[in-house]
Amino acid sequence: MVSQTETGGTSKISFPTAGNNRGMLILGIILRIAAIVSTIASAVYMTMSDEQLQLFTQVSIFSVEYEDFSTLRYFVVINSIVSAYFAFSIPLAMIHIARSTAKQSRAVLIIMDMVTLGVLTSAASAATAIMFLAHNGNSSANWNAICNQYTGFCNKASASLIGSFVAIVILMFLISMSTVALARM
Amino acid sequence: MVSQTETGGTSKISFPTAGNNRGMLILGIILRIAAIVSTIASAVYMTMSDEQLQLFTQVSIFSVEYEDFSTLRYFVVINSIVSAYFAFSIPLAMIHIARSTAKQSRAVLIIMDMVTLGVLTSAASAATAIMFLAHNGNSSANWNAICNQYTGFCNKASASLIGSFVAIVILMFLISMSTVALARM
Repeated sequence: MVSQTETGGTSKISFPTAGNNRGMLILGIILRIAAIVSTIASAVYMTMSDEQLQLFTQVSIFSVEYEDFSTLRYFVVINSIVSAYFAFSIPLAMIHIARSTAKQSRAVLIIMDMVTLGVLTSAASAATAIMFLAHNGNSSANWNAICNQYTGFCNKASASLIGSFVAIVILMFLISMSTVALARM
Repeated sequence: MVSQTETGGTSKISFPTAGNNRGMLILGIILRIAAIVSTIASAVYMTMSDEQLQLFTQVSIFSVEYEDFSTLRYFVVINSIVSAYFAFSIPLAMIHIARSTAKQSRAVLIIMDMVTLGVLTSAASAATAIMFLAHNGNSSANWNAICNQYTGFCNKASASLIGSFVAIVILMFLISMSTVALARM
């Protein structure tokens, strides 16, 4: 890790905002690591959400798991890919600590983060729509609230959404931070 | 409209990339207008998707409209707000034609576009998840494919998603364009 003590006001001519930028860049890398953890947690927790019911009634469904819903499968796949992307983006973000004037690679990172934001948001909100339906059902479409029966599945699957939304907030913050840094250069 | 003939190579010292930038900025404004049309079309077409069935069977549901699904209601509201945002963002984008060195307001525009991208993607993909379910149903949850009965509703509601996805692609392109322009300054 780069020492924070180097970034004082002594080298103001060559790096006008180096001190401020370096702190922000290190914060950015910490946030990327947090986003890796969030998205992996989302993917893993969703895959652990299967539930089997031992009912003595005439209900014909007895087990439910995330793989039954293509939207939740999409959620798991996208969270896995996004966590890999965050891991891959850390070296690129580290370049900016060493070379604080690398405008082009900053722009590339903003664009890649933006695409990731779009993809992750699509997965998270599609899964949210399905879990909302599982909780509330829909009377017009005759879709029952399956969470009345599959409480365990619903709780785990709903909780796994949190990791994705944390990563979305982190991404929005990272993009804003990089954009402001780019505008100041 | 600003004349394109002013932006030749004659004033290269004061505006190094003015000609190139001005063309891109005008393209950006045209794309914003296209995005207004797309999102309004999405919102209006979704609200026109209600369908009543005259069935002589024992099926207990006879009418369905977008208002029965909170996700589709969210979709209409967000598309309306986003179209208003695009209209509001055009004056801000026009500033950059007059003052091509306005870095701060470019950064603000990128951040606002990014937040809009997140919100619009969430609405579009949640609505897509619901329409996917309406088309395909889900056997594990005992949710029937209502599109077998409500063909008209499903076709209209699914078609209205297109406008949102067009606006999402436009937003991604606008953010990339602004970021590259900012990196070149």
